[in-house]
Amino acid sequence: MFDNKERTNLEELGEFGLIDHLTKSIIPNEKSTIKGIGDDAAVLDFADKKTLISTDLLLEGIHFDLRYVPLKHLGYKAVQVNLSDIYAMNGIASQITFSIGLSSKFPLEAVEEIYEGALIACKKYNVDLVGGDTSASAQGLVISVTSIGYVDQSKVVYRNGAKEGDLICVSGDLGGAYVGLQLLEREKKIFLDNPNIQPDLEGKDYIVERQLKPEARRDIVELLAEKDILPNSMIDVSDGLASEILHICKQSDKGCKIYEEKIPIDPMTYDTAFEFGLDPTVCALSGGEDYELLFTIPQSDYDKVKGLLDITVIGHITEPSAGCDMISKSNKVHPLIAQGWNSLKKKEED
Amino acid sequence: MFDNKERTNLEELGEFGLIDHLTKSIIPNEKSTIKGIGDDAAVLDFADKKTLISTDLLLEGIHFDLRYVPLKHLGYKAVQVNLSDIYAMNGIASQITFSIGLSSKFPLEAVEEIYEGALIACKKYNVDLVGGDTSASAQGLVISVTSIGYVDQSKVVYRNGAKEGDLICVSGDLGGAYVGLQLLEREKKIFLDNPNIQPDLEGKDYIVERQLKPEARRDIVELLAEKDILPNSMIDVSDGLASEILHICKQSDKGCKIYEEKIPIDPMTYDTAFEFGLDPTVCALSGGEDYELLFTIPQSDYDKVKGLLDITVIGHITEPSAGCDMISKSNKVHPLIAQGWNSLKKKEED
Repeated sequence: MFDNKERTNLEELGEFGLIDHLTKSIIPNEKSTIKGIGDDAAVLDFADKKTLISTDLLLEGIHFDLRYVPLKHLGYKAVQVNLSDIYAMNGIASQITFSIGLSSKFPLEAVEEIYEGALIACKKYNVDLVGGDTSASAQGLVISVTSIGYVDQSKVVYRNGAKEGDLICVSGDLGGAYVGLQLLEREKKIFLDNPNIQPDLEGKDYIVERQLKPEARRDIVELLAEKDILPNSMIDVSDGLASEILHICKQSDKGCKIYEEKIPIDPMTYDTAFEFGLDPTVCALSGGEDYELLFTIPQSDYDKVKGLLDITVIGHITEPSAGCDMISKSNKVHPLIAQGWNSLKKKEED
Repeated sequence: MFDNKERTNLEELGEFGLIDHLTKSIIPNEKSTIKGIGDDAAVLDFADKKTLISTDLLLEGIHFDLRYVPLKHLGYKAVQVNLSDIYAMNGIASQITFSIGLSSKFPLEAVEEIYEGALIACKKYNVDLVGGDTSASAQGLVISVTSIGYVDQSKVVYRNGAKEGDLICVSGDLGGAYVGLQLLEREKKIFLDNPNIQPDLEGKDYIVERQLKPEARRDIVELLAEKDILPNSMIDVSDGLASEILHICKQSDKGCKIYEEKIPIDPMTYDTAFEFGLDPTVCALSGGEDYELLFTIPQSDYDKVKGLLDITVIGHITEPSAGCDMISKSNKVHPLIAQGWNSLKKKEED
């Protein structure tokens, strides 16, 4: 990947040299960061707010394929995936730690690209990179990110607070990241069969970007605050809409009814799903990696959301005995199934 | 490793099933844990304290060798290594997140052992496991731990606070973990050459345990508080004494003088180092993984530490132009070199 570029071997730098090199230009901006990189631990001050912590692993060959994921995008996405969890608590993300395990096939320039992507995400989302770990890896690339944020105790939104009659809302649109992945996988296969054929992703920018460069929905958290909406429950859509709704219903001990025709799906997602012989609704329900926010609000807040372009009401919360169902476009009742994005099964399917 | 035991394939459980199974008995005990496992992020309340965050990656084939590291010990050590960083800030560790990437060669029972070790460490150190991530791994075992703690702002001890004239102190003894590793590596080689020969670790429990089951020094943080000692600087000894002293001197813009004869080395470490043709002092200076605390205190606090069995004064801080030296037993001056435990070079040496 870097054969035609400058290569600096990581061994020449050593661990401390690499850390110094990667972090020398990082200056904390958040006022809650008292001490960032450079000591045994970061020191943070959340005053009277509560601290939020979330963490994710991204492993080569499971979560990403370096044959089509640019390294800078990978660093960017690794951060977004984590920030999304803080926003899903209705919190503000303020810091991350970024750890990376690298096999010797990666030159310094590759690591720099991953870090650059991570730092672009940090800058865009007003988040400080305050720590991490850098290690050799005996095999593939390993990324582990922990995100830290804060929230007023009275504003924390858990998964378990959904109330009967709540409206179920989702931000943005769904299924795009999954369909984008199908497209990238197809082009990879074509390329592997015949390396002279260049990938044909023309006109598919939106769904390719949904897969490679997702954006966590800080703006939705801000919009909800601005409109004075405090959801009763919230979760981010990382494993597909069905799985996330079922998490909320299970933890809130409620049922739900959602309407297929209401599920927001971008026209490009829709059309491309059909090209692949996929049902766009199934892509939205089980595809995952959309990193949208799914939340429930009291019916009395309907007037506050109905004019918001980026929020769609897709159903409502019911009593638990009613089950968790989707009403199809043909008015049939389908129980929701948590297929999710089962990364433990994924490997066998590959 | 688990051929003669019950094997439950992880694929049968799926990711959510595995997480439920591993975490169902985890109940938060720390009063700062408002919400632990089960939502998008953990919610923590540190009231008027500052929040501390540290993170580490442990990768198979780099940080551990499953041919001689028992899984339960591995889980235990992964937690200790992280707590040590919180104590090195003079803080109290209160929570961890524990992420694990597993190849399909691991049955559920193996994961349970790793978790069991982690939870034993959590219980012993009064730390809640509040989150994590569980994923398939295309290759080896990946563990990522983030530790969270708290501290009074007036009690935070950084690496950069050493003052000229400070006494340099270290807890416990050094070099044992490294010599223990040599012993385990030797027995592994003998076993690989002839699987009928059982490992001979008799009488070497202490140094084997230093390597396999280190203990982070919460007790030293408590002892310092009890004796009303607030160090000017502190770091934990993960990469070897020399590397850590140099971190303190570099960040404090100071020099140092340490005395070889003062470096605390256990007799078993000493004798076993000689068996391997190693200089015990070099093992202490460059071996690493001891997870002791290295700190500097004003000379006026000497009376407070001189009677403490588990703390040794090994030298003092000097003006920066004096350099960073060790005075040998034969009274020769040796500049300290940060060889450290360079995990980025380690792989090539293997």
